[in-house]
Amino acid sequence: MSKLLIVGTVAFDAIETPFGKTDIILGGAATYISLSASQFGVDCGIVSVVGGDFPKEYLKKLNDRNINTDGIEIIEDGKTFFWKGKYHNDLNTRDTLITDLNVLANFNPVVPKNYLDTDYLMLGNLHPAVQMAVIKQIPIRPKLVVLDTMNFWMDNTLPELLEVIAKIDVITINDEEARQLSGEYSLVRAAQKIHLMGPKYVVIKKGEHGALLFNNGDVFFAPALPLEEVFDPTGAGDTFAGGFIGHIAKTDDISFENLKTAIVAGSNLASFCVEKFGTERMENLTQVEIQERLLQFKLLTQFNIDLR
Amino acid sequence: MSKLLIVGTVAFDAIETPFGKTDIILGGAATYISLSASQFGVDCGIVSVVGGDFPKEYLKKLNDRNINTDGIEIIEDGKTFFWKGKYHNDLNTRDTLITDLNVLANFNPVVPKNYLDTDYLMLGNLHPAVQMAVIKQIPIRPKLVVLDTMNFWMDNTLPELLEVIAKIDVITINDEEARQLSGEYSLVRAAQKIHLMGPKYVVIKKGEHGALLFNNGDVFFAPALPLEEVFDPTGAGDTFAGGFIGHIAKTDDISFENLKTAIVAGSNLASFCVEKFGTERMENLTQVEIQERLLQFKLLTQFNIDLR
Repeated sequence: MSKLLIVGTVAFDAIETPFGKTDIILGGAATYISLSASQFGVDCGIVSVVGGDFPKEYLKKLNDRNINTDGIEIIEDGKTFFWKGKYHNDLNTRDTLITDLNVLANFNPVVPKNYLDTDYLMLGNLHPAVQMAVIKQIPIRPKLVVLDTMNFWMDNTLPELLEVIAKIDVITINDEEARQLSGEYSLVRAAQKIHLMGPKYVVIKKGEHGALLFNNGDVFFAPALPLEEVFDPTGAGDTFAGGFIGHIAKTDDISFENLKTAIVAGSNLASFCVEKFGTERMENLTQVEIQERLLQFKLLTQFNIDLR
Repeated sequence: MSKLLIVGTVAFDAIETPFGKTDIILGGAATYISLSASQFGVDCGIVSVVGGDFPKEYLKKLNDRNINTDGIEIIEDGKTFFWKGKYHNDLNTRDTLITDLNVLANFNPVVPKNYLDTDYLMLGNLHPAVQMAVIKQIPIRPKLVVLDTMNFWMDNTLPELLEVIAKIDVITINDEEARQLSGEYSLVRAAQKIHLMGPKYVVIKKGEHGALLFNNGDVFFAPALPLEEVFDPTGAGDTFAGGFIGHIAKTDDISFENLKTAIVAGSNLASFCVEKFGTERMENLTQVEIQERLLQFKLLTQFNIDLR
C-alpha cells in the first residue's frame, strides 16, 4: 500500500452562503485533502498543527477514515487556525471575514518517522516556508510531489514560493493564479511558462468550469459535473487535489495517462464536497456513490467521432 | 445530400480587439453559420437581406464555398446592416459601439422555392418575428429546427420569442441567457425549465469554457480547445452553431449520440474562427486542418477509468 503524506491546515471554519450559515465547524486544507484521498485506501498521514481547543472528536473523525493524525501537533495553550468567509450569490466569489492564524503563525512542521519514506507528498495550501521545511525533512525523494498554493503567497512570499515550485512535480492553481504567476493571459502559454519554473505537470482548476492538465505540449480537460444544487464550495479545490493524489497513490502510476484519470477522480470527489456544508458530505461518502458518479463523468464526456 | 436552410444576418462588421482593429468587413450570423456548415458538404442556402452597398465579391465568397445565396434579398436603395464592437482585454466581454439595422429593420424573409423542402432549419440570432415567418413558410416540418437567440430578444420581445421557442427542437444560448430565460441559476435546473418551454435539446454555450448539451436528464459536455492565442471572438457562437447543424445535416441523424458528436464538431470549428479577425480563418479552412484538430479534441477529453 502506498504511503501518502499530506501537509496543510487543520482548522475551524465558519461559512455563510446564500443558502445558510454554519457555526464553527471542522475545516482546513489537509482535512479536505485527507477525507478525499482516504477514499482510495492508501496509508495517508497528515502533518499539521492545532490548538488545545481542537475537539478530540474531530481527530477521531479523521482516524475513523484511516487517516493517521500522529503528525498533527497539538499546542495545548494555543488556539486552532480559524477562517470565516461569506460567499456571494454566484458562489464563485467570496469575502474572507476573519483569518486568525493562531497556532499556524509559528508552525514548525515535523514529519512523523513513519512517513519519512512516503511514496507521495501532497503540499496543501500553506506558507511556502512550511512546505519547503517538509520537503527538506524527507530523505528520499517521493515518487511525486504535488503542490497547491494560491495568489496570497504570490503576492506576499513570491521568492520562497518559486523555490518550492522549482522542487515539485505537479502544481495545482486556479486560472487567475496561473495568469498571475506566469504573466500570460492564455492558459496554454501560462502553462508553458510555469513548466519552465519546474513542474512537469500543471493543473489549472477552473471551479465549475472544470480542470486542465498540461504536460509539456499535451493537454487534458475534465469538466466539473453539472449539479442541480451547489450548497457550499468550501474545500472543493482541496477535495479535488485529494482525489487526484489519492488515485495516483492507489494506482502507484505517475504516467500522463494515469494523471488524466486522476483529474477525473478529483473532479468526481469535488462534485460531492459542494453538496453540503463543510466536510459533512465527505464524511459520509460511500464507494458505491463514488463509482456511480464516475459513470456519469464518462457519459458526460465520452463521444464517438470518425477520424478520417 | 441533405438540405440545410439558414436564416440570419448578413452584415458589415467593424471590430476592435486588444490586438488590433479592422475596417468594415464581412460579418453576420448567417455568414458565419454558413461558412462553418458548408464544411460538411451539405446543400446549404441562406435567407437574409442586404443593401445595394453589399459587394458582389462577398456573395461570391459564399458561392465559392457552395453556399446558395438566392435567398439573400438585395434592397438596391438600402444599406446593409452594420455592427461595430470593441472587445475588452479578457476577450470575454465587449461593448457594442454601433448597431445600424438599415435594411434589417423591415426584413420580410422569403424562403426560396428550392428550400421549401429543407431537411434542416437553422434560425440564426434575429428578431423572433422573422424566425417565426420562416417557420411558417415551410410546409413540411424539417427533421430538426435549431434556434439561436440572445438576451436582447428576451428583454424586448419575450412573448414572440417564447412562441418561437415552443416550435423548435434545439435552442442554443449562453449560460447567462439560460439563467435569464429560466430564472434558475443552476444550469441543470435552467435546462429542465427550458425543456418545458418546448425544445427537446438545450445547448448552453459557455465560450472558452465549452458547451453543454441537455436532453431531458442526460447531459453531455464538450470543452473549448485551449488555444495559445485568441485573436477575435466575433462569430464564434455562430460558427459553433454552423458546425453543429452542419454535422447533423451531413450525417442525417438526430439521435442524442449524434448530437454529442455535433457539439464536438461545432466546438472544433469555433476554435478556428477565433484565430483571425472576422471570417478570414473560416474562408481558408481545409478539411485536413479540421480533421487534425478533431483528433486534438479526442486527446483532450478521452480517458480510461475502471468502473467496478
